[in-house]
Amino acid sequence: MRIGFIGLGAMGTGIAGRLLAADHALVVWNRSPAAMEALVARGAHAAARAAEAARVDVLHTMLADDDALRAVLLDGGVLDALPRGSVHVNHATISVALARELAVLHARRGVDYVAAPVFGRPDAAAAGQLHVLVAGDALAVARVRPLLEAIGQSLWPLGTAPERANVVKIAGNFMLAAAIEAMAEATVLGRAHGIDAGELLAVLTGTLFAAPAYRNYGRLIAERQYAPAGFALRLGYKDTRLTLAAAESEQVPMPLAGILRDGFLDALAHGDGELDWSALAEVAARHAHLQQRAADTLP
Amino acid sequence: MRIGFIGLGAMGTGIAGRLLAADHALVVWNRSPAAMEALVARGAHAAARAAEAARVDVLHTMLADDDALRAVLLDGGVLDALPRGSVHVNHATISVALARELAVLHARRGVDYVAAPVFGRPDAAAAGQLHVLVAGDALAVARVRPLLEAIGQSLWPLGTAPERANVVKIAGNFMLAAAIEAMAEATVLGRAHGIDAGELLAVLTGTLFAAPAYRNYGRLIAERQYAPAGFALRLGYKDTRLTLAAAESEQVPMPLAGILRDGFLDALAHGDGELDWSALAEVAARHAHLQQRAADTLP
Amino acid sequence: MRIGFIGLGAMGTGIAGRLLAADHALVVWNRSPAAMEALVARGAHAAARAAEAARVDVLHTMLADDDALRAVLLDGGVLDALPRGSVHVNHATISVALARELAVLHARRGVDYVAAPVFGRPDAAAAGQLHVLVAGDALAVARVRPLLEAIGQSLWPLGTAPERANVVKIAGNFMLAAAIEAMAEATVLGRAHGIDAGELLAVLTGTLFAAPAYRNYGRLIAERQYAPAGFALRLGYKDTRLTLAAAESEQVPMPLAGILRDGFLDALAHGDGELDWSALAEVAARHAHLQQRAADTLP
Amino acid sequence: MRIGFIGLGAMGTGIAGRLLAADHALVVWNRSPAAMEALVARGAHAAARAAEAARVDVLHTMLADDDALRAVLLDGGVLDALPRGSVHVNHATISVALARELAVLHARRGVDYVAAPVFGRPDAAAAGQLHVLVAGDALAVARVRPLLEAIGQSLWPLGTAPERANVVKIAGNFMLAAAIEAMAEATVLGRAHGIDAGELLAVLTGTLFAAPAYRNYGRLIAERQYAPAGFALRLGYKDTRLTLAAAESEQVPMPLAGILRDGFLDALAHGDGELDWSALAEVAARHAHLQQRAADTLP
Repeated sequence: MRIGFIGLGAMGTGIAGRLLAADHALVVWNRSPAAMEALVARGAHAAARAAEAARVDVLHTMLADDDALRAVLLDGGVLDALPRGSVHVNHATISVALARELAVLHARRGVDYVAAPVFGRPDAAAAGQLHVLVAGDALAVARVRPLLEAIGQSLWPLGTAPERANVVKIAGNFMLAAAIEAMAEATVLGRAHGIDAGELLAVLTGTLFAAPAYRNYGRLIAERQYAPAGFALRLGYKDTRLTLAAAESEQVPMPLAGILRDGFLDALAHGDGELDWSALAEVAARHAHLQQRAADTLP
Repeated sequence: MRIGFIGLGAMGTGIAGRLLAADHALVVWNRSPAAMEALVARGAHAAARAAEAARVDVLHTMLADDDALRAVLLDGGVLDALPRGSVHVNHATISVALARELAVLHARRGVDYVAAPVFGRPDAAAAGQLHVLVAGDALAVARVRPLLEAIGQSLWPLGTAPERANVVKIAGNFMLAAAIEAMAEATVLGRAHGIDAGELLAVLTGTLFAAPAYRNYGRLIAERQYAPAGFALRLGYKDTRLTLAAAESEQVPMPLAGILRDGFLDALAHGDGELDWSALAEVAARHAHLQQRAADTLP
Repeated sequence: MRIGFIGLGAMGTGIAGRLLAADHALVVWNRSPAAMEALVARGAHAAARAAEAARVDVLHTMLADDDALRAVLLDGGVLDALPRGSVHVNHATISVALARELAVLHARRGVDYVAAPVFGRPDAAAAGQLHVLVAGDALAVARVRPLLEAIGQSLWPLGTAPERANVVKIAGNFMLAAAIEAMAEATVLGRAHGIDAGELLAVLTGTLFAAPAYRNYGRLIAERQYAPAGFALRLGYKDTRLTLAAAESEQVPMPLAGILRDGFLDALAHGDGELDWSALAEVAARHAHLQQRAADTLP
Repeated sequence: MRIGFIGLGAMGTGIAGRLLAADHALVVWNRSPAAMEALVARGAHAAARAAEAARVDVLHTMLADDDALRAVLLDGGVLDALPRGSVHVNHATISVALARELAVLHARRGVDYVAAPVFGRPDAAAAGQLHVLVAGDALAVARVRPLLEAIGQSLWPLGTAPERANVVKIAGNFMLAAAIEAMAEATVLGRAHGIDAGELLAVLTGTLFAAPAYRNYGRLIAERQYAPAGFALRLGYKDTRLTLAAAESEQVPMPLAGILRDGFLDALAHGDGELDWSALAEVAARHAHLQQRAADTLP
């Protein structure tokens, strides 16, 4: 089975590496060619153009956002190059609207479109420890299942309409951002009452919130260690916009998502887009003027 | 060591039972006497008046809110009855302002005031599996430590100012309510896109949010099983007001807490105060008119 | 001077009528031809195709939204048909992003693009009593000034970049929606305390808020008279999205606009999109369960 | 008719001056005696203690907040000193809850309690140009009507339950704060798009929002001229708390009021409590980091 992979950022490189490690022949492409070198050294073939990586049985893509995917897939000729009967597995977090549109465009060309967004950071991707959501035609999903098992620790089938996987992925990222905002406000409340953020979060993530998401982001907030970003704040903002767009298309009010939007905009306006998205906590601290309070108590 | 216990709701009864099980002599009092019977059957002594339960070495109280505590402690003569050198251990979730006030009032009378709010449901209380936060004078805390160890699976010392434990407790309840609101909005988004709440939450609590809080409340939301309440919505509202009061006293904006306030008020206005506080999810569903959508799709 | 007019809804018809009344020769086009009849009866010439109405010295357009304008102007060949040296005067409330894009596209073809959004209802349009905001090249604005004076009671020049007029128009509609939301919440508060909405608003619009906007919308809210719509709620929602988009492009948090978005979505989900946008007040009333309270007090 | 007046801040002094100008005999009291001098020079009698000013036919009070009123009226012996059959006219903006409580306390002593909160700034008070809301027993209101006409340009009877006037007063201040927040967000949006706040507000207050409230506060916002305060921000925050308390007691969600609360807390945390409450606009500007943007564009 010939496999293609387009989009070799940190996540894409990790996933492609797992496919190589499972002894699959892989043709890769990336806009910036340097990202292909490490995989070529491990046996991948570097395509000269994106469309070349699409002449395969299964094409995986992991591109940054709707615009990047449209540019490569539609304007870049990749969809046109996909053979009839092939499968396109898209790992990216894209809008529900684009997922619906792509399902139709692929069907017209006799290509199966499978949405397979993932939960996990680059290190989990490299270790094959992602959680993989998957939705699409049942036969197509069955066909790519061994590939998905090679990249993830768990597989979550979500039906035949691809956009269903995107809705769940978007909902999950929304809930992560909400957890960050909750920790942000809680720690600012604590600090204003003289309780260190680390002390407060040690109790809460040691009792009610003993989940990795709370522990990891809680540590970053307590230590104010936002660089290098595990997940960049500007991407967290992008996903919040996807949440709001998915809500608007079905007329769903989401007040908490609205708060996240304003918090992310505030952070972006302050130049923090490349920090980890847990830097949302700095917004809450600024609004309460915490820095200044600390300064006032210096000798 | 003589021990008193005032306030025998579901939580108080569970905690008092653990003290009895640890072979402590216990004098108990409750406004409604029926609640005392089970403990008397297990060896407790029933006080005729609240003040009688206060003539002890250590008094535990677990009353519903600030008003109930003031009524018993101040107007009911309990504080006046506490012997010099005794310790008052307060397990209730009260306001930060009242905690500060009580610390002063007890100190004036030569009584130690220890705040020991807990995380956990009545079944955890009965099983001695609470998480116990504790703050107060170091010697007093050391003295009551064996008692606290009898009622909890973990003990979290938070310094000498009692209100510090209350701030952390309030922050924890705020974060729980925020998690409920996040699940509420996420499941409404999913349902509007045709994804069942149980299906969506199975993925998210099986991956990113594998914590008991998310799993328990997620199940209640997915099954819309809000009665009997594990924690009544009107109490969740009460705690949100404590959060906002603690934030106001230190000039801390908390937009997410503001959203919770409005959601709880909406639920109360709809008569849902005695349901489990996860019924906050019904508010989000009403705003998106989900019930009607389901009806529209019936044959 | 030959003048074209495309887009004959209630507003467009009113404006075009004023141009006719000022003795201008007018060629008109509308997607639904029936709307052209009344103007033809008053002397206008009906174009067979949109592009035909563009072979003029000054083209006015008043289309519903970005998509309608793109469809007619770009896909429908109208921009291509505009003669070099002509002026396109756009009265519609469109996005800031599209206004910027159109300025560039017109400049490339040697056509002047002038943004001239208006404040006022259809009756004000028909009476030449609109307030007209205008931005664009100074010479082009000077050229169309007599036309704008024929349609408005006041003219507000806002500089040479067309999108500046759109920003001010969007900001004005945002402030109107905010005033409606403020009256909505205030009247629900009053009604919950037994004060009729009409009684409360009579005081407030008779004292602090003696402006037509408050008086008109206040009357609709007090009488719950939302049909026929002066300005449809779905259009109010559209403009709120334009506000949020303009805010996002420049990284401006707007919490009040976020609340309006959720309120409008709630109203749309309840099927109220064709009511007047002051029906936003019904959302606040539902959240407080006011209807039910009234019912409870019936004998 | 003997008249007493307690509470001689800027507003109280203006009102009392009008009563003197109408040839009423006035006994005045203020905690800080200096405030009495100007009125004594105009013929008022200065009471030695608050209770002395209460031995009158009609007592007017204008105190800062609930606490100040309780201190003087209840703890200071003023209520006890009021003769049976006298009327207490309270001009202050107090909580609905306290208004209800006072109505009962006065009735028990055979004193009529009339709520008469006002709209207007100190200069309007001095000129007798206030708008006076009034609620209370019909006969008592009839009795004090000439006094109220001496201090206001208009009188708004709101029924027999005193708290009704307080609800309307609170609702009016809420709507003013909402208008300020709307202008704050709108001007920040405009400034981020390169449109000066003065330019934007000139258009909007010259067309849709031609009301004094918008013009006055709009000018302060455009000129960033927040001192001296016409109405201090900390008082605007106090009134927002009264709004939220009145909403909570009747289970009314008010999302816009929640945003105002957070904005005021942010301003207070930044030390702006003594500025005019239109300084709320600075909060919105900080969140969008506008100051820094301006700095970035300097040569």
